[in-house]
Amino acid sequence: MSATMPAVVKAHAAPGIEMRDVPVPIAGPGEVLVRVDAASVCGTDLHIYNWDPWAQGRIHPPLVPGHEFCGTVAAIGRGVTTVKEGDAVSAEMHVACGKCLQCRTGQQHICQHVRILGVDADGAFASYCIIPETNIWKLSPTIPREIASLLDPLGNAVHTVLAGPIAAQTVAITGCGAIGLFSIAVAKACGAAKVFAIEVNAHRRAVAKEMGADVVLDPATDKVEEQIMDMTGGTGVDVLLEISGHPAAIRQGFAVLRTGGRASLLGIPSRPVELDLARDIIFKGAIVQGINGRKMFETWFQMEALLATGKLNLNPVITHRMKLSEFSQAMGYLQSGDAIKVVLKPE
Amino acid sequence: MSATMPAVVKAHAAPGIEMRDVPVPIAGPGEVLVRVDAASVCGTDLHIYNWDPWAQGRIHPPLVPGHEFCGTVAAIGRGVTTVKEGDAVSAEMHVACGKCLQCRTGQQHICQHVRILGVDADGAFASYCIIPETNIWKLSPTIPREIASLLDPLGNAVHTVLAGPIAAQTVAITGCGAIGLFSIAVAKACGAAKVFAIEVNAHRRAVAKEMGADVVLDPATDKVEEQIMDMTGGTGVDVLLEISGHPAAIRQGFAVLRTGGRASLLGIPSRPVELDLARDIIFKGAIVQGINGRKMFETWFQMEALLATGKLNLNPVITHRMKLSEFSQAMGYLQSGDAIKVVLKPE
Amino acid sequence: MSATMPAVVKAHAAPGIEMRDVPVPIAGPGEVLVRVDAASVCGTDLHIYNWDPWAQGRIHPPLVPGHEFCGTVAAIGRGVTTVKEGDAVSAEMHVACGKCLQCRTGQQHICQHVRILGVDADGAFASYCIIPETNIWKLSPTIPREIASLLDPLGNAVHTVLAGPIAAQTVAITGCGAIGLFSIAVAKACGAAKVFAIEVNAHRRAVAKEMGADVVLDPATDKVEEQIMDMTGGTGVDVLLEISGHPAAIRQGFAVLRTGGRASLLGIPSRPVELDLARDIIFKGAIVQGINGRKMFETWFQMEALLATGKLNLNPVITHRMKLSEFSQAMGYLQSGDAIKVVLKPE
Amino acid sequence: MSATMPAVVKAHAAPGIEMRDVPVPIAGPGEVLVRVDAASVCGTDLHIYNWDPWAQGRIHPPLVPGHEFCGTVAAIGRGVTTVKEGDAVSAEMHVACGKCLQCRTGQQHICQHVRILGVDADGAFASYCIIPETNIWKLSPTIPREIASLLDPLGNAVHTVLAGPIAAQTVAITGCGAIGLFSIAVAKACGAAKVFAIEVNAHRRAVAKEMGADVVLDPATDKVEEQIMDMTGGTGVDVLLEISGHPAAIRQGFAVLRTGGRASLLGIPSRPVELDLARDIIFKGAIVQGINGRKMFETWFQMEALLATGKLNLNPVITHRMKLSEFSQAMGYLQSGDAIKVVLKPE
Repeated sequence: MSATMPAVVKAHAAPGIEMRDVPVPIAGPGEVLVRVDAASVCGTDLHIYNWDPWAQGRIHPPLVPGHEFCGTVAAIGRGVTTVKEGDAVSAEMHVACGKCLQCRTGQQHICQHVRILGVDADGAFASYCIIPETNIWKLSPTIPREIASLLDPLGNAVHTVLAGPIAAQTVAITGCGAIGLFSIAVAKACGAAKVFAIEVNAHRRAVAKEMGADVVLDPATDKVEEQIMDMTGGTGVDVLLEISGHPAAIRQGFAVLRTGGRASLLGIPSRPVELDLARDIIFKGAIVQGINGRKMFETWFQMEALLATGKLNLNPVITHRMKLSEFSQAMGYLQSGDAIKVVLKPE
Repeated sequence: MSATMPAVVKAHAAPGIEMRDVPVPIAGPGEVLVRVDAASVCGTDLHIYNWDPWAQGRIHPPLVPGHEFCGTVAAIGRGVTTVKEGDAVSAEMHVACGKCLQCRTGQQHICQHVRILGVDADGAFASYCIIPETNIWKLSPTIPREIASLLDPLGNAVHTVLAGPIAAQTVAITGCGAIGLFSIAVAKACGAAKVFAIEVNAHRRAVAKEMGADVVLDPATDKVEEQIMDMTGGTGVDVLLEISGHPAAIRQGFAVLRTGGRASLLGIPSRPVELDLARDIIFKGAIVQGINGRKMFETWFQMEALLATGKLNLNPVITHRMKLSEFSQAMGYLQSGDAIKVVLKPE
Repeated sequence: MSATMPAVVKAHAAPGIEMRDVPVPIAGPGEVLVRVDAASVCGTDLHIYNWDPWAQGRIHPPLVPGHEFCGTVAAIGRGVTTVKEGDAVSAEMHVACGKCLQCRTGQQHICQHVRILGVDADGAFASYCIIPETNIWKLSPTIPREIASLLDPLGNAVHTVLAGPIAAQTVAITGCGAIGLFSIAVAKACGAAKVFAIEVNAHRRAVAKEMGADVVLDPATDKVEEQIMDMTGGTGVDVLLEISGHPAAIRQGFAVLRTGGRASLLGIPSRPVELDLARDIIFKGAIVQGINGRKMFETWFQMEALLATGKLNLNPVITHRMKLSEFSQAMGYLQSGDAIKVVLKPE
Repeated sequence: MSATMPAVVKAHAAPGIEMRDVPVPIAGPGEVLVRVDAASVCGTDLHIYNWDPWAQGRIHPPLVPGHEFCGTVAAIGRGVTTVKEGDAVSAEMHVACGKCLQCRTGQQHICQHVRILGVDADGAFASYCIIPETNIWKLSPTIPREIASLLDPLGNAVHTVLAGPIAAQTVAITGCGAIGLFSIAVAKACGAAKVFAIEVNAHRRAVAKEMGADVVLDPATDKVEEQIMDMTGGTGVDVLLEISGHPAAIRQGFAVLRTGGRASLLGIPSRPVELDLARDIIFKGAIVQGINGRKMFETWFQMEALLATGKLNLNPVITHRMKLSEFSQAMGYLQSGDAIKVVLKPE
């Protein structure tokens, strides 16, 4: 193994990113060194690239970003017992502290001192990365590599969809980026009665259809509320999965949520949102859930099981396959809205 | 029985109310005629009295308001089997349609075609009122009359408190009107670890203390967020019971809600509220519930059982006892904030 | 409409049954007269036919049995508003009292004073039957007649499968009569990871395969426990759906249930069963649920929604289609084990 | 600190136990050395003492038993951050593997590879014991020493009581050993409507009354089923907490459980039990839960919170306070049934 490796590095507190040769890290006790086989790009990486206010407040360069990936165990540190060299793996990149109230009561996914690899410490946009054994997910050999690089956002979708009953339910999904699109496939595979997908981008609407959405609506031209109320017999949908983070979509989603329905919110609004709490939540007796990350590791078991059924066709979401060294170009595709999911391969 | 009775009547589409003699109603099939023993005044009655925009949109005069009461069965209509003349009763005044999705799936409390007696049809501010048998609640003889007139708002409190785990939980209650105050007593009786009550009105804060609140805070002078975070070891409370409907209180409540906590919203804001969904709900993985009315009739069974334990001392909430004919005077007391709960007795 | 109709009648407290002409019933207030289009035969009907000890203790001849059916509204009684003449309908034949604790807390399906049409009062093995409006289920026009006659047992399956999480779960189903077979289809449609069906009868095992079971085992020749433990990585299944009522199957089911798993019991053992509570439930931290009937009417909404997705192919379960007048012959087929589900059509 | 310490040692695979001087253990990385302040005796210790079949199959002498205790941190191993020398602590003695399905999905309390300190490795009947940092519970200073030595069985009670709704519920508790008695106090503190305690031993029945049981029944002389059905209006209890493990008590408990009720089983029957599944679970639509250990660490947070309310008076359960060196005498008291809880203090 070479002593250095090519990596995507956020080197400075400024827009942009660069490819650099950096030392291959070494697995300490309880750690696993993983050779990265494929890594996917997330909106978060774009924030880091653009050096927006969120990135300025959170990121401490130099940093190797990247938190969606799969790879092969290259070496294990002392005490590691659950994987061995050569095992195919992915990883949960939210590293929980294990000591706070949340961690000690089965809610590590909302740990108060979480450290995210690829955000708060070096991640997977490199030939190798280091993962604590606790966070390693050993892959079933039946899962294709590319798909295995998407378990982080697929897990967001699975967490959101399965946060409440979904079988036999009507569902509105607001926002069809990768997570919204995955949510369509997951909801359908889990017996959703009818899935309404709402999205402004025409390409994403087309992919939503491919993923199995029963009805795809464009808020710019369709009368979303009227049509959904009509197609649900005036009742509204049983479940709202809000993945956009956009205030208008959030309000539209609540408007079509039925009395007594469930709203699972994953999309992150960039600022406070005005909501008609009386009409949309209180009189409605609605249940609203904040969804963060993936349940550790319930969501991972669920993903693996659903992928094994063969019912989840995630391929339409991967719009680009590129080399890791083409990272800046990938940023451009995502910026323009042409790309949904870009999978990168280190050389 | 006389053919007429004195009643409080909203006679015209204008502010004010009047005492009138009206015909004693007759129990039709499946209906129960109840002689009113005591009736309590709710904020809703004040809206009707003041003829505010909500009342203008909802109320069709002439109407006998009043939806919190207890009484004695005076006569039963054809087919009624569960009560007989002389039985002590109260009633759920939300009359569900029984035919909508919500009614057919155990959620009559959020029926889409609910009709509220005392709002949409004649209520209890009179010597007698008519109640469908389905909505009658036969009282345990151990419940004092005055207390029995408060089951509607006590039920709101029980519904809110027991909408999730409460034993061993820390709880913030924002707003100490009657329902907030009842919620304190219910939470403590059900094993809440520590109850923080937040209220601007000094008299109500004093009553909150009497009801068993562990810590009572005044948002005008106390550093509410700092103090609660401090007294919960920096974690925040497990449960927020929002009873005020006031935007600042709602935001303050969410600010002290712990990651992974439960927020049950009962208070009705008079207009849309700006919320930091990202910080307060999504990243927090919070569960937010809209609470409406009382579960039919689970909440009633719970109330009866809790009252029977003798652990709920509700008396401090009853600030005034008056004659039904003094209704306008009661409105004045409530308007001024001097009164919390006024119990009226027909003569 | 003729004044009489042919009906299957249990005329005497003895084995057997006869076809008779009986008066067409008349819909009273709140009742619906339904012309029967198709009616299916249940194991209960065989008990009644055979006049076994259960039937002797429960049935009061003369009785028209039959509680699985669909039909067309022929007439409505006074006050009926939710259906009209000509509507396609089925019905929940468990008529709840509406007044007991269970009925008043959303658990009508376990009403303490339930009256079952076709068991405690006349049912659907006739040209017409009478159903209270509360129990009528208006059919979506997309549901084929034959299938619509099976909603009662399909509802048992849906109730059992959806009594807990099913998506991404491994499932063992013990007993592949009609309800067990339906459960396979429902579990798969709702995202079950892997369904193991266990059944002694070779024909039913073949149908289980057709319904989508991933693995079908014969307890007579397969090492059921060993194989299931092996195919679940030594963990056992997440969910046990016990539909057989057979003591050996129940014990086998618990033996393969994973620690922390869910066991939903629907099959009715004919006598007490010896269970190793310590090993199978307590140390395992298992959840065991008794399943009775269909949730009223949540299960019906779920069935309708699942049927509308087109994912449930129930046809393999219908082994015989006969005339109502061939009832005794149908009994023979069921007795012999040749038949699974027999659908009868009145002439 | 001396190099050796007195300890209770199960030295041989035979009945009996002995006091021995053994080396004081040393805290390795991630471990905590605790000076034992008080340790309580559990029925399990009696099994080990008596060398019964269970002990013969599980225990590998030499062993220091003891798994209920509290103490003071004497030294910490490398990497320990959550406690420091001098801290008052107790500990969860079930050491979970952290790697199985159950551990990775928030169910460490039913870990498939659990190791119990005091059973599978040395425990607390000595001057010092070693505890992994993950299992240490830092004590609130308000909890008295003696009470702090009882958190293990108190946790069993809290886990059992809070495994489902308890506020406003009627509860039958079968078996009034320490855990049953604690369950009475916990249920009452959490708003149980009425607690029926069923116990054969007169002394324990008296303590049950002291703990707050509303009704205490002796199965030898009372008509338990008749009386409970009568005192619950013919409905039966909402909740059964089975702590005895005795077949007759289990059956009696199920007989008084209401339709739709919850049965939480903690008591361990020594052999399979015959149950009328049809009547007691299936038709009843009952929920049965196996309860094992304490939820890690939700139950510990709940215990601490409930103890802090001051509502749990556990003192009546402590019948004997002795020196650790009087261990064999303590065994005698427990054997005879004179003792409920014996608290031992090392010298």
